[in-house]
Amino acid sequence: MALKKMVYLFGGPKTDGASTMRNLLGGKGANLAEMSRLGLPVPAGFTITTEVCMAYYQNNHKHPPALEKEVEAALRHVEKTMGAGFGDAENPLLVSCRSGARESMPGMMDTVLNIGLNDRTIQGLIAKTGNPRFAYDSYRRFVAMYGDVVMGIKAAGEFKGNPFDAIIEEVKKQKGYHQDTDLTTEDLKLLVDEFKDLIRTRLGRCFPEDPREQLWEAIGAVFASWMVPRAVAYRHMYAIPSTWGTAVNVQAMVFGNMGRTSATGVAFSRDPSTGENYFYGEYLVNAQGEDVVAGVRTPNPINRAKPLPEGVIATMADEMPKAYRELDAIRRKLEKHYRDMQDIEFTVQEGKLWMLQCRNGKRTARAAVKIAIDLVREKLIDETTAINRVEPDQLNQLLLPSFDPNAGRKVIARGLPASPGAAVGQVVFSASEAEALGKDSRRKVILVRMETSPEDISGMASAQGILTARGGMTSHAAVVARGMGRTCVAGVSGLSIDYESQEFTTPGGLTVKHGDWISLDGGTGEVILGQLPTTTASLTDEFFTLMKWAGGFKRLGVRTNADTPRDAQVARELGAEGIGLCRTEHMFFAANRIDIMREMILAADKSGRLSALSRLLPMQREDFYGIFKAMDGLPVTIRTLDPPLHEFLPHTEKEISYLARILGEDRLRIRNATAELNEQNPMLGFRGCRLGVVYPEITDMQARAIFEAAAQAVSENIKVLPEIMIPLVSHEREFSLQKAVVDKAAKEVMDETKTRFKYQVGTMIELPRAALTADKIAAAGADFFSFGTNDLTQTTFGLSRDDSAKFLPEYLKEDGVWDKDPFVSMDMDGVGALVGIAIEKGRAVNPALKIGICGEHGGDPDTVRYCHELNMDYVSCSPFRVPLARLAAGQAAVTAPKAAAPVKSSPKPAAPKKSATKPAADPKKTSAKKPAVKSAKKTA
Amino acid sequence: MALKKMVYLFGGPKTDGASTMRNLLGGKGANLAEMSRLGLPVPAGFTITTEVCMAYYQNNHKHPPALEKEVEAALRHVEKTMGAGFGDAENPLLVSCRSGARESMPGMMDTVLNIGLNDRTIQGLIAKTGNPRFAYDSYRRFVAMYGDVVMGIKAAGEFKGNPFDAIIEEVKKQKGYHQDTDLTTEDLKLLVDEFKDLIRTRLGRCFPEDPREQLWEAIGAVFASWMVPRAVAYRHMYAIPSTWGTAVNVQAMVFGNMGRTSATGVAFSRDPSTGENYFYGEYLVNAQGEDVVAGVRTPNPINRAKPLPEGVIATMADEMPKAYRELDAIRRKLEKHYRDMQDIEFTVQEGKLWMLQCRNGKRTARAAVKIAIDLVREKLIDETTAINRVEPDQLNQLLLPSFDPNAGRKVIARGLPASPGAAVGQVVFSASEAEALGKDSRRKVILVRMETSPEDISGMASAQGILTARGGMTSHAAVVARGMGRTCVAGVSGLSIDYESQEFTTPGGLTVKHGDWISLDGGTGEVILGQLPTTTASLTDEFFTLMKWAGGFKRLGVRTNADTPRDAQVARELGAEGIGLCRTEHMFFAANRIDIMREMILAADKSGRLSALSRLLPMQREDFYGIFKAMDGLPVTIRTLDPPLHEFLPHTEKEISYLARILGEDRLRIRNATAELNEQNPMLGFRGCRLGVVYPEITDMQARAIFEAAAQAVSENIKVLPEIMIPLVSHEREFSLQKAVVDKAAKEVMDETKTRFKYQVGTMIELPRAALTADKIAAAGADFFSFGTNDLTQTTFGLSRDDSAKFLPEYLKEDGVWDKDPFVSMDMDGVGALVGIAIEKGRAVNPALKIGICGEHGGDPDTVRYCHELNMDYVSCSPFRVPLARLAAGQAAVTAPKAAAPVKSSPKPAAPKKSATKPAADPKKTSAKKPAVKSAKKTA
Repeated sequence: MALKKMVYLFGGPKTDGASTMRNLLGGKGANLAEMSRLGLPVPAGFTITTEVCMAYYQNNHKHPPALEKEVEAALRHVEKTMGAGFGDAENPLLVSCRSGARESMPGMMDTVLNIGLNDRTIQGLIAKTGNPRFAYDSYRRFVAMYGDVVMGIKAAGEFKGNPFDAIIEEVKKQKGYHQDTDLTTEDLKLLVDEFKDLIRTRLGRCFPEDPREQLWEAIGAVFASWMVPRAVAYRHMYAIPSTWGTAVNVQAMVFGNMGRTSATGVAFSRDPSTGENYFYGEYLVNAQGEDVVAGVRTPNPINRAKPLPEGVIATMADEMPKAYRELDAIRRKLEKHYRDMQDIEFTVQEGKLWMLQCRNGKRTARAAVKIAIDLVREKLIDETTAINRVEPDQLNQLLLPSFDPNAGRKVIARGLPASPGAAVGQVVFSASEAEALGKDSRRKVILVRMETSPEDISGMASAQGILTARGGMTSHAAVVARGMGRTCVAGVSGLSIDYESQEFTTPGGLTVKHGDWISLDGGTGEVILGQLPTTTASLTDEFFTLMKWAGGFKRLGVRTNADTPRDAQVARELGAEGIGLCRTEHMFFAANRIDIMREMILAADKSGRLSALSRLLPMQREDFYGIFKAMDGLPVTIRTLDPPLHEFLPHTEKEISYLARILGEDRLRIRNATAELNEQNPMLGFRGCRLGVVYPEITDMQARAIFEAAAQAVSENIKVLPEIMIPLVSHEREFSLQKAVVDKAAKEVMDETKTRFKYQVGTMIELPRAALTADKIAAAGADFFSFGTNDLTQTTFGLSRDDSAKFLPEYLKEDGVWDKDPFVSMDMDGVGALVGIAIEKGRAVNPALKIGICGEHGGDPDTVRYCHELNMDYVSCSPFRVPLARLAAGQAAVTAPKAAAPVKSSPKPAAPKKSATKPAADPKKTSAKKPAVKSAKKTA
Repeated sequence: MALKKMVYLFGGPKTDGASTMRNLLGGKGANLAEMSRLGLPVPAGFTITTEVCMAYYQNNHKHPPALEKEVEAALRHVEKTMGAGFGDAENPLLVSCRSGARESMPGMMDTVLNIGLNDRTIQGLIAKTGNPRFAYDSYRRFVAMYGDVVMGIKAAGEFKGNPFDAIIEEVKKQKGYHQDTDLTTEDLKLLVDEFKDLIRTRLGRCFPEDPREQLWEAIGAVFASWMVPRAVAYRHMYAIPSTWGTAVNVQAMVFGNMGRTSATGVAFSRDPSTGENYFYGEYLVNAQGEDVVAGVRTPNPINRAKPLPEGVIATMADEMPKAYRELDAIRRKLEKHYRDMQDIEFTVQEGKLWMLQCRNGKRTARAAVKIAIDLVREKLIDETTAINRVEPDQLNQLLLPSFDPNAGRKVIARGLPASPGAAVGQVVFSASEAEALGKDSRRKVILVRMETSPEDISGMASAQGILTARGGMTSHAAVVARGMGRTCVAGVSGLSIDYESQEFTTPGGLTVKHGDWISLDGGTGEVILGQLPTTTASLTDEFFTLMKWAGGFKRLGVRTNADTPRDAQVARELGAEGIGLCRTEHMFFAANRIDIMREMILAADKSGRLSALSRLLPMQREDFYGIFKAMDGLPVTIRTLDPPLHEFLPHTEKEISYLARILGEDRLRIRNATAELNEQNPMLGFRGCRLGVVYPEITDMQARAIFEAAAQAVSENIKVLPEIMIPLVSHEREFSLQKAVVDKAAKEVMDETKTRFKYQVGTMIELPRAALTADKIAAAGADFFSFGTNDLTQTTFGLSRDDSAKFLPEYLKEDGVWDKDPFVSMDMDGVGALVGIAIEKGRAVNPALKIGICGEHGGDPDTVRYCHELNMDYVSCSPFRVPLARLAAGQAAVTAPKAAAPVKSSPKPAAPKKSATKPAADPKKTSAKKPAVKSAKKTA
């Protein structure tokens, strides 16, 4: 590859780059150039492009020959600007060498500081600063960092931790020192020698005294760090292509540790936790980034915008008013320029302010929403930009309680973050106990099961959270928990549950007993021992404003999956425009119904079934009436009975005996009947419309219950729009047969009640064959299609969501099979192809066909965008994902079709693509108490 | 609908129809016309077209107005030809009124004989024949038939059987008669009156004396019988569209019961059982068809071509030499004309021969093959015609033993005819017992199980037959049994098995114990108590000639699914051109292997797995070597491990204890590990290439075993063409990962053994996603695709073959969902669409891609035709279906593409489309001993 310009200058009289050149210069390099262009005080430096990185890899880890000349020229530019010479023994220029990829990969790649120091230039530094301790401190840091990062000392032996730190500890022990600051200049000088000795003896090579060798080796080390395992893993997690490469930024060093007039700090142009518009930041006088990291000293606020913490008496505004005023002006300038909240890194060297980095700041969901709304009010951005400023997935944070990030966590197991939220409760092992205890609102329980089944529904609803040993992100437990807004951690492999002795054992061997308190983090999948304090959700005005704007732009309708009037109400308040999926089967699990349901299933003949059905009818009618009332004026899609019948049957001998008694039946017959309904692959068994085709009386009962409820509602001036949905259709004749039953019931009920109402009959498209023959199904009179992409994914892949946990990790790893879990985000190539075929075939026959999606994917932002592009009419998702889907639908509408990429590279917060796998930390708290990895190698 | 000509004459000086007009005139009408054209003595008559039938239904069961005029004109033509008048009191013409559809539907529709008799015309008949008894006998028969068929007396009351017969029995009782022939003329006259009384009192309507009313009502009754339930069911079973309609044939009556010079008979131009070329037939002197039916007298042979049965002293050739000679000449004429074996019905009335019907005769498979070959030798047909003269499904009869059709059957249960053949043995309930007993070749056992699993393989191979309570036509038991050539009756619903007390109970309540003898008819699905005598299979020279011809025409390759050298050898002898599917997993169930397999699965880490795999390798190598040797020079497609691992694990506590002991492992750990591998939906679980992706060492071992065997074979000058097939691919990366493992093993083995051989790596296309992304899989380097249509059908329909038995009957009934079981014949609309997509996408990327099918459908003739049309390279099926597939492939090649219809309507034996559901009876035996329903209303 013949490369064009390989090196871009910044920070001096000439700036080659700009923020638009992010792909070429990386985020850091582009923003350093942009700050230069804005006239901000940036230490001079240059950026080696990402193309050079890729050339480096294609060329067997060698730099392109022409690079040396360009770097030398750039280096001369830096020397000239900074008035110092690289390697000059009297007036040495020191530089840093940092990575900088197109998307931020905090802490994943390498950084080398203080390049240019050697036994000769150290003297110049001492002369220049008059501070030998500072100089030797910098020198020993450089040798240690270089020995580690560039020369790879750790790989040369069996070290416990960093071998250079071990030497320091040894010296401190010998001298009886307690802190690093106790080390004298002589001590530091000695350390430099000892470090060099260690390098020589361990690696058989000397620490290079030549500054140019130091620089070139450092550049190579940064390029090489693009491929270290942690970076590869990070990219895989956030779907960053390995072909992007990293840029290398070489920049003149400035020092915040040159005495009381020097400092270093990090600031955000607005509060990243709350979004409030004040200048938020922290700084340390006479310090380097590393000191902050080491936690030796706690940084102070930069100003008095908020009450000062206990014991703090001064801020940067007080101590360094000039530098602070300059910084504050820069903050305003940058925000106006970037039109977004900025994350700023700065250093004050002997009173002079230097800008080391700026970028769009990470923020909490609450802050993201508030900042987006405020920026519109400040006329910095428009509404379409604002709705693109919030990652849909982030909204979960706002809707669900979360754990106090400051609380210590004793993580005892880890599973899949199956349903978000923060749940604390006492361990119980049966749904019935959860239900019983849950009636007392003061009791909080966590239901722990190998897996859940539909009859656990009531118990799940009564629990704070659900923990399962088996099942994936779309297992029964996960799906139901998300639907209910319950926290769920699923598929904790290695979790062993002993129902008999009422305890479970973690993979680590810890035993937790019935009644013990645990906490579940549905955002991370962590299982924590004890009661972790939580913070509750609260929806702000800004949230509703954002929702309104998104709603104004979106073309897709957003409905909800809801089975109860309560869920329907919650979803409606969150913006649902109808029910896209009401599962009728959950209604049969209530205590007063399950026995009748079982009687129906076990009936020897049709008359027995009819008798039981006639008693179920008024109950179902009542359910539907409640839902129609809650959704007055909005469409309600009701799916007829779907699960295999055996799911309703008793499993234990005790239940069988009880059922035999109340039905006056032989226990053996019931046990046999139950066993006979058992299936090898229930997923592919006697379920869905197959039930209705064989027992049309069940469909008839359900249709009558729906229509009688509709008639009642109509008589009370409630506006009803029932849509009856036939599940698991694979052949158009199944649909025709079931539609005939529904139409007959509708006519009868209208005649009997002398009411009139409109209704529709449609089908789920959840089997490949339905998609492939969608034209025939449309021709058979379907008014609507609703894609059941859970089942469609299972059948298209031939993959049971419940059984996939065993190989999921292998499939999702880097160089594995999938980029994304197809149960989380719809697989476009396979499942998406079928959806496309079905829409095309269906609309060709009936252009008015209403088309939606009601699988779990309806709440996934990528899928929502795809649904928009496929010109669907609506998506439907669980109540708590409705805002997310509305936002994603709005974003899809304001983004040009097929232009998913711009969203990712536009100057919006670079939030992770998979927020579920990455805990959304509070950046304020984090930077103060738990320094993020990235800070470790940042500022000097 | 404005109808053209509605009535077609035959049998007189003018004949309107011809055999080419089958669709319009029905089979019977077309052939009566054709016989007329040939100058044969056909009683005059006319045919009302099938179009009139459809008009009748479209017009609310009314005849088109213009029909009357045409019928009247035709009737005059008949009167003139026969020299008698319809309703003429002195010289009455009597006519019959018979149905006749495009395809024969024997006995399904109605017939009325002797129309035209009334109290006036009876006198003419007496005068004309001088035989009052004959006349009154005809009259009472007519009134009874008319009262039943046309007036519907049975629907008017709660009769036990035919109410007219009850009256006859009453009279006989009163008079002390034993037989109908004891009835006097007076008795018969009285019966006519009593019959008329019964009609009047029961129906409130009189028997119509007007011959024209009789005729029109009879015509209406025949049209109406097109829609009676039995006819509807029959059409559904044989896929005959209801829109075809039936014709009505009105024909002058002739009588075989007018004394010793009259007779009636049925003949075949060649022996329909053996195909031998001699005139085969039976006749009865002074008789009507009904008498034959009643079984009062046994018919005699028409000639002495074969030794006469005991007690028979005369044949038709002896008793009526003139009529016989005429008949024999007609036989020759008809065969020459139709160029096929003919089924002839005739009557001799007072010495004159009348032809009542001719059609292509039904025949056994053996006869079909022999006749086809003989006709070519006689230069009556060419080879392409000959191979179309045998229904591929019929060949099963030749390849497998069958039960003696004369043996009485005590059918105790019925299931699905899952694998053909006739098996007799003693009941055992465990595979291990079957295996143990089966070692003694004198012991014959039937293995009875709820269902079978792969570890039952050895036991199944040792049994004569397998009987299961669960599972469909493609359940494990069915698939394996077909593969092994074992008889299997599957899915006997209601069969209850008690393993503990070692007995099963039939749905009818009969208990059969361990050791009891039963017989299984794999052609009908019947379970028979006791030991039914069987006849063995024998392949004739004609069979091999036919196979050779079919092989010469066919373009599709025909391979076999075979897992052992023995199966491979059998299939090769039957014409297989390679192995299309060798399942490696069956090899692991042998006693000396299963423990090592279990050790491998339960190994805690990779090194444990490798240790077990290294011991399995030489065993697998030996297997493959044997297969390569058997298939020397032919390609062998070997599928890597496919089933979920838990299928190999122990299920009982005893097995677990044993395994724990030999592995030196904790029993609890083994039990837990086994439980942990259990799956909700194993069909969609951790199986296929997912195993190989997670544990590449398994694929590596299998690949090495294959290649080491290949190297050994090559060193012995055996020509090997191994094709490694990766199962259950849904994503191209799965294929790439597995291909890399295979390629590496191949290179290593070739280097180690210093041999060179060619091999291919391909994949099964058995999941919808694989079909939809076939271009990407082809681009990933697949050399071949093999459609696994069993799994593809399961996933496309979302339908487990094992669990479908519960609703299959409902789905397959008339007005049900499916025309055909999609596991028996490939579903063209859904599964076929995916196959088409995959072929198009795959070949677009790699035009040289080899494409075949290895699902069960590879042995289904309709599917073979479809595969030919899709331009596949080969089909692969179980060994005993290879001849069938070769024949079907030959037929497809000689039939114009997309011209499936001509095959059905060409003058070939109208064999049922679903031979599996219809026992292939021996027509010779049947017509003599067990009169088929159709005969009941045929000749007079």
